[in-house]
Amino acid sequence: MANVIVAVDAMGGDHGPQTVVSGAVDALEDNAIDKIILVGREGDIRQVLGALNYDENRVEVVHAQEVIGMEEIPTTALKTKKDSSIVVGLNLVKSGHAAAFVSAGSTGAVLAGGTTIVGRIKGIARPALGVVFPSTRGYTFLVDAGANVDAKPEYLLQFAQMGACYMEAVMGIETPKVGLINVGAEREKGNALTKEAYGLLAASDLNFTGNVEGREIPLGAVDVAVCDAFVGNIILKYSEGFAKGIMSMLKEELMSSGISKLGALLSKGAYGRLRKRFDYTEVGGAPFVGLNGLVVKAHGSSNAVAIKNAVKQCSKFIKADVVGKIREKISHEGVEENGI
Amino acid sequence: MANVIVAVDAMGGDHGPQTVVSGAVDALEDNAIDKIILVGREGDIRQVLGALNYDENRVEVVHAQEVIGMEEIPTTALKTKKDSSIVVGLNLVKSGHAAAFVSAGSTGAVLAGGTTIVGRIKGIARPALGVVFPSTRGYTFLVDAGANVDAKPEYLLQFAQMGACYMEAVMGIETPKVGLINVGAEREKGNALTKEAYGLLAASDLNFTGNVEGREIPLGAVDVAVCDAFVGNIILKYSEGFAKGIMSMLKEELMSSGISKLGALLSKGAYGRLRKRFDYTEVGGAPFVGLNGLVVKAHGSSNAVAIKNAVKQCSKFIKADVVGKIREKISHEGVEENGI
Repeated sequence: MANVIVAVDAMGGDHGPQTVVSGAVDALEDNAIDKIILVGREGDIRQVLGALNYDENRVEVVHAQEVIGMEEIPTTALKTKKDSSIVVGLNLVKSGHAAAFVSAGSTGAVLAGGTTIVGRIKGIARPALGVVFPSTRGYTFLVDAGANVDAKPEYLLQFAQMGACYMEAVMGIETPKVGLINVGAEREKGNALTKEAYGLLAASDLNFTGNVEGREIPLGAVDVAVCDAFVGNIILKYSEGFAKGIMSMLKEELMSSGISKLGALLSKGAYGRLRKRFDYTEVGGAPFVGLNGLVVKAHGSSNAVAIKNAVKQCSKFIKADVVGKIREKISHEGVEENGI
Repeated sequence: MANVIVAVDAMGGDHGPQTVVSGAVDALEDNAIDKIILVGREGDIRQVLGALNYDENRVEVVHAQEVIGMEEIPTTALKTKKDSSIVVGLNLVKSGHAAAFVSAGSTGAVLAGGTTIVGRIKGIARPALGVVFPSTRGYTFLVDAGANVDAKPEYLLQFAQMGACYMEAVMGIETPKVGLINVGAEREKGNALTKEAYGLLAASDLNFTGNVEGREIPLGAVDVAVCDAFVGNIILKYSEGFAKGIMSMLKEELMSSGISKLGALLSKGAYGRLRKRFDYTEVGGAPFVGLNGLVVKAHGSSNAVAIKNAVKQCSKFIKADVVGKIREKISHEGVEENGI
């Protein structure tokens, strides 16, 4: 097996190189990752590295002078900033110098750049962002969580196929249950998109269990939940807000009397564990599936632990050869590049 | 002021006439409602009434032999079951015998029947289901939460206008803040629908505060949150499932050690209060706005308290003359029936 080398966007994220570089170096801890390539302003990166203990043979720095800001228009920025950490990092995957690229920077630039630089797997109409989502029963792969806000039924079928490959190869789930996110359980329910997608999913060789309503998603009804990125983004961000809201309301209620305050103190450990189950930093980043290589988007507000987990998670993805499995799946389906 | 008379679908909901009839009778408790008309199989209704104490002058029974089941195709059922509780109840609103109709029965039949029997306000392209949604700061009117899964930008503008009328008239909020549910805060973000709707909302005289991302909704960022019914339904049901999931995870964690178990016992009151803040039975039903009369959809699993609150809530809506205010607003806007 070749070395597992992961390139990391040292300039991405809300907290800057300090957080990203230390998180990335921590990802080397148990040898699942052989080497990291830190991409960005060399001076900034070396400054952070100077204060860390690490094996110099396992950390490389590739200089990139420019940074694509969160507020820039992705397509324009990708064209004008050829020497940005995102463009340089994606090119390392394209050239085969790295097996994966992890960035907590501009989602739009990572997605657009992933498609144009790393390129789509032949037969894939649209790559999609997948998020491994905690549920009461384990994890659900929510796809598309960010790339295609206007989707076609054929895209949803491919999202489902890629999601199933991921859950099988990375999470070890045999014949994962696939559900179509919809407004009702019955086949005839839905909007124009889901009504047509239902037929495609039902006719596929996937373990399609039908529509999955909003209330079933957090309860872990399916292993792969398929939707367009508009719906996926709303679900993802809504969960963040809802968890925050419910925890702040709980705190308010607990603090409103002396006796509940005491109870809360005794139950502190349980709250901590609950928070951890909902913590995106535990899961790491979101893989952008459908590309000829692994590109992982980490949350913009990632701390060092989240970066570490996003980098480490790449090892499973690479070793399970998810890209190869998606390629095989799609070519078996006989979908032609121009077919969709 | 004329008497406030509310017709209630005695046959609707998962728990049958027993629950609905007793909840409806309880709604007479403080005279906000002058009279209720129970619609459905007279024998069943009289049997429940026989065991209750109530003022006979304030309870009328209107017999309807048929029941539209939850699994029936709404348009077909409305045509073939003219003597169903839903059709008879909606006709009571149309004829002016009742100012409102409340049903916990088939959502599809109530919505389709509301539009065809009670009829749209002139100028309203599509009536929409609005849900008063608890947030950390108070309440948000989520619209459309169930009627139009495929919407046009013009519909979203009208949903916003109707939602603002509701929050102003019923909840007493001056110039309510209106937000467009979207995948990013910036104007250029979104799918084809929201990109176009943004322009219409920005050009309107509403207090439009721009896009509202998923994470801001539960935190009460706006008074009126606008979306198509696909997104609205997912948000609504997802919240139900998420709240259930988070409470069951919390319970699991609290029960996992003796000390947190003791803490949980002491904090019991706080958990009860939290659950109450998320309890849909406290808010009552969802008004179907845009009709020439008030039609309220109660949750299928409503208990007697939820039915009571849904019936009582009608009084505010009727006294505030929300129908008249929407009519006035839409005619001021100069939208013609055939304009959309």
